[in-house]
Amino acid sequence: MAEHTVQFDVAPAPVKVPTGTLLVEAARQAGVEITQPCGGQGRCGRCLVRIVEGTARRRSTLRLSAEDVKAGYALACQTVVEGDLVVSVPPQEKIERRLTTDRTAAAISVPAGYDPAVAQTIQRVRLTLTPPSMEDQTDDWSRLKAALRREAGIEEIRASLATIRQIGTTLREGGWQVTATLDTRSWDCPDCPAYLIDLRPGHIPDDTPLWGVAIDIGTTTVTVWLVDLLSGEVRAQVAEYNGQIARGEDVISRIIYASKSEESMAEIRELVLGTINELIETACKRTKSTPADIVKATVAGNSTMIHLLLGIPAESIRLTPFVTAINHVPTLRAWEAGIGIHPEATVDCLPGVASYVGADITAGVLSSGMDDTDKVTLFMDIGTNGETVLGSHEWLVTCACSAGPAFEGAGVMHGMRATRGAIEEVWVNGETFEPTYRVIGGVKPRGLCGSGLISLLAELFLTGVVDKGGHIKLGLDTPRVREGEHGPEYVVAWAEETQTGQDIVISYVDIDNLLRAKAAIYAGFTVLADSVGIPLESVEQVLIGGSFGKYINVEKAIQIGLLPDMPWERFHFLGNTSVRGAYLALLDARSRARVRDIASRMTYIELSADNTFYEAFMSALFLPHTDISRFPTVGAAILKR
Amino acid sequence: MAEHTVQFDVAPAPVKVPTGTLLVEAARQAGVEITQPCGGQGRCGRCLVRIVEGTARRRSTLRLSAEDVKAGYALACQTVVEGDLVVSVPPQEKIERRLTTDRTAAAISVPAGYDPAVAQTIQRVRLTLTPPSMEDQTDDWSRLKAALRREAGIEEIRASLATIRQIGTTLREGGWQVTATLDTRSWDCPDCPAYLIDLRPGHIPDDTPLWGVAIDIGTTTVTVWLVDLLSGEVRAQVAEYNGQIARGEDVISRIIYASKSEESMAEIRELVLGTINELIETACKRTKSTPADIVKATVAGNSTMIHLLLGIPAESIRLTPFVTAINHVPTLRAWEAGIGIHPEATVDCLPGVASYVGADITAGVLSSGMDDTDKVTLFMDIGTNGETVLGSHEWLVTCACSAGPAFEGAGVMHGMRATRGAIEEVWVNGETFEPTYRVIGGVKPRGLCGSGLISLLAELFLTGVVDKGGHIKLGLDTPRVREGEHGPEYVVAWAEETQTGQDIVISYVDIDNLLRAKAAIYAGFTVLADSVGIPLESVEQVLIGGSFGKYINVEKAIQIGLLPDMPWERFHFLGNTSVRGAYLALLDARSRARVRDIASRMTYIELSADNTFYEAFMSALFLPHTDISRFPTVGAAILKR
Repeated sequence: MAEHTVQFDVAPAPVKVPTGTLLVEAARQAGVEITQPCGGQGRCGRCLVRIVEGTARRRSTLRLSAEDVKAGYALACQTVVEGDLVVSVPPQEKIERRLTTDRTAAAISVPAGYDPAVAQTIQRVRLTLTPPSMEDQTDDWSRLKAALRREAGIEEIRASLATIRQIGTTLREGGWQVTATLDTRSWDCPDCPAYLIDLRPGHIPDDTPLWGVAIDIGTTTVTVWLVDLLSGEVRAQVAEYNGQIARGEDVISRIIYASKSEESMAEIRELVLGTINELIETACKRTKSTPADIVKATVAGNSTMIHLLLGIPAESIRLTPFVTAINHVPTLRAWEAGIGIHPEATVDCLPGVASYVGADITAGVLSSGMDDTDKVTLFMDIGTNGETVLGSHEWLVTCACSAGPAFEGAGVMHGMRATRGAIEEVWVNGETFEPTYRVIGGVKPRGLCGSGLISLLAELFLTGVVDKGGHIKLGLDTPRVREGEHGPEYVVAWAEETQTGQDIVISYVDIDNLLRAKAAIYAGFTVLADSVGIPLESVEQVLIGGSFGKYINVEKAIQIGLLPDMPWERFHFLGNTSVRGAYLALLDARSRARVRDIASRMTYIELSADNTFYEAFMSALFLPHTDISRFPTVGAAILKR
Repeated sequence: MAEHTVQFDVAPAPVKVPTGTLLVEAARQAGVEITQPCGGQGRCGRCLVRIVEGTARRRSTLRLSAEDVKAGYALACQTVVEGDLVVSVPPQEKIERRLTTDRTAAAISVPAGYDPAVAQTIQRVRLTLTPPSMEDQTDDWSRLKAALRREAGIEEIRASLATIRQIGTTLREGGWQVTATLDTRSWDCPDCPAYLIDLRPGHIPDDTPLWGVAIDIGTTTVTVWLVDLLSGEVRAQVAEYNGQIARGEDVISRIIYASKSEESMAEIRELVLGTINELIETACKRTKSTPADIVKATVAGNSTMIHLLLGIPAESIRLTPFVTAINHVPTLRAWEAGIGIHPEATVDCLPGVASYVGADITAGVLSSGMDDTDKVTLFMDIGTNGETVLGSHEWLVTCACSAGPAFEGAGVMHGMRATRGAIEEVWVNGETFEPTYRVIGGVKPRGLCGSGLISLLAELFLTGVVDKGGHIKLGLDTPRVREGEHGPEYVVAWAEETQTGQDIVISYVDIDNLLRAKAAIYAGFTVLADSVGIPLESVEQVLIGGSFGKYINVEKAIQIGLLPDMPWERFHFLGNTSVRGAYLALLDARSRARVRDIASRMTYIELSADNTFYEAFMSALFLPHTDISRFPTVGAAILKR
């Protein structure tokens, strides 16, 4: 096959690639980063490059005008190399590094009465062996097993060949005194012998921490808690954007990207492993420990995140009839999962329920305690997939509605993630229509995050700038409302106030996306309540998980019809319930058993095949809802206006 | 560190190595083969090279004269690079490739009544799954498990992450019809769930063989039997020299070589894996199968061979108090063992008993059936370590005596292995002292193999050329007896009759080595019989394993005092009992349980700490023995003379 030379202006050297190579692949080989937020589908247009010399075939120009093409612009993910090229790559959007203590995870209290001797499956035991002699020529392995039997009551053990190779040396190095770390109760095989994770020469002092990590892989953010399994204390909490974002902002884009080739699956996998392993190193540095001392990990995350972490093809998740390859992955060793801790460490992924109700939700239910309460409870994780669970200790039903990423700032022109520079709360004056707002970090605004959008929409609705159908009323006596490029728009911040030097606005297109998002979530509640034949009002508590949920203003979320209209005291924000569930399962075998029980008890309702959902969704596409009687306090507020 | 250039005359290009590198290591890097039969100890002198330019430091010149050193000769395993060198490497001894059907393994009959449904732990099941739908969104893994439960009664399964990654694709490729291969009863964890080895799209026809291999790793020869686990038939038998020979001819040399560095351990491991995997490929070619279709392996071999196969340090085997790292290795997967069959195939190593009574002996006992007979039985494997077992279904005692490699042709000037050109049988005329002999392959002789040496020694003794003490009588009326370089010697073949153009002789030094070897083995019998308080004569049958044993002439072995003097019909030659034991354990879970039972029942007697042994050894250092009353038939033959 013919080879061509591709020179990227930002790369030190050109690369040679065969005919038919995609420009993004050539860039990867040249070490040039080109972000692909839509996963390389040619939909988002963010991988724009300019072909300076040579010609290339454009498979799609969806996001390009005729002028763009004429000027040499091309989408790197849709452009095929067919000759020598010189390509100019614009500066790529930097994903801001956070590497900070997760804001949502306050000081975590150890579960009451935590006793590692009862709850913890990892045991560390100090052993003193009888040295071999001409009178006792027992082999090292049997000698070790005998000591475990004698001194720790552990009848049988398993170990990897890698561990067996080291036993003789370790026993002699320690002068026949060693410290063994074992997993005594495997999740997927309770009858299996204990697994020997680690054997070290000498006796490790009792007060040395026994390290474990709870990992939550969010589509956007990865969170790691470093835990001392002896005390149960969380010793470090770190979080960072998921490195996969550069290859797709939502799960669907990532599945599409990963399905392209074995290489792209490997890349997607390495990206998230890179994030996880860097976080683990950071957490270890803070606690003056080393990753190789971590002997256990639990992992929560949505089904796609778990599949991609483990390199399991996820294509069936996005295609009818939407099934996962596996909901509950068997216990793994860290080396096979690729997690940079002790290679023999136990890695337990929490169980999922369906393609769009994953281990993040079962972990959430576990940590919310809703599976153990008499109260009829609604648990929700407001995000792209709007996973919702309704139930109590008696029953659990669940569904996921494709809310889309509007609340994460995508699909909204000036939307952004909830980081520095995002407007997170807005107030609109009912007479002047002038807004005031609060910005994360107290800096000049760059855009609106989810909570800002909810707040803005509620204010615009209650002040009459926006009607029940989401339309912006032109003709109000304010320069803030105007005819924009995409129809009527409301200016939240003038160019001179912003970081970008451009007006921050919200248009009907944006509002329509928000309406669809909130309608999908609310319709989900309706279907769940209908499915068990109870009115939504009988819900006794609403538990909101997810770090996003934490920043929602309940009053305003009710006003737009995102949350059901109930007394505010019924709402509780739980923060990152996913990592907290992983933490509970890390500590306690009973919690681990409970989360499996939760997964098996949850009845999943597939909304895409449900007419009730469609009807409920259509009724909810209004502010706050077609049926205002469902939102009495909002009705009253409108009347007051 | 300073780097030096070493150019070997037989290498295409020089290599650069740091100061202090051994010449053998430099040679390895240059791709130059230098055999090290003593494992690089500087003892055998067979890695002789000549330094043509430059100077090097000789750590040992044990085998070199002052003239040799002056002429530039050096032992590659003892010579340290300290400057640029040009080195001349003489042609290396070629280890003749055999790659033939094992001569000793005749047509193997399948154990009577073999029923794979009862005996075999591997099950192959054809499954038809209900395809997923919007009404049934069960994940692939659970769907597969449900089918196994429903169609094969297999309640729970385990699988590696690598297998789990492929399940979704395989199910869809097969249109929800698949064939699963499982290991239903793990040896080391009978309570563990069945292990999913392989999943293939479609229904594999019932008459397709289900492949397994029985592997015997001898210090000298590796044997592989390819078996159809459904019929139990051995479909191919292949054998080849163990590739490790080039790094040590006996187990001690190999342990020393492997203990030098991680690299030398890796090399020793790869050498035997190379032999095994090549044999498997050959066996597959003969049966038109592929290695990836082999789903189970059993491995027998002495303790050192098993350790080195698996990369487990073996140093403790050769050092007081002579303990192994592990006698019974847990079940492995082929990928971790490095065996080139299905990567997920089950690999069961048979259990050993002690450093010098390994899995080859437990396998031998199993296949000999001595653990299941009323008759007091002596089982022996005549070789370097002379492992011997005495017992019956009631009790088993065992020992190993360091016989040395004399019977394998080493330590004897014109000794050689039993291959083409070896004199395997000799007759000496009692009046003329002229010999006649038989040569393997019917060609001109090159030397004497073990059976030839036994035969020659017996004939020389009975014809009076050699006395009771092993001394050659000078002054006999024959040119065959003469004073040689190392004292008196007997010429077996004149230069003009031989391949080498040199006389083939046996000297007192050679005879002394043979006496020590046979005395050690006979003393072993004595100690075993003493230990249980029975006279050696009460042994009802003598079972001789090992391919070498098969060629021994019983009459002559008794005449030199190697075997006890009993009626010939009590002796039975069983050939390679080790591979046969591996074969039985491969087929039948009951045999597998039996060999473990054998290993645990065998009482090991350490001879190096036993005074009885030393006395018995000294008494046996005569032809046939100090106490001629122990050898009545030999006494009678001498009288007749």
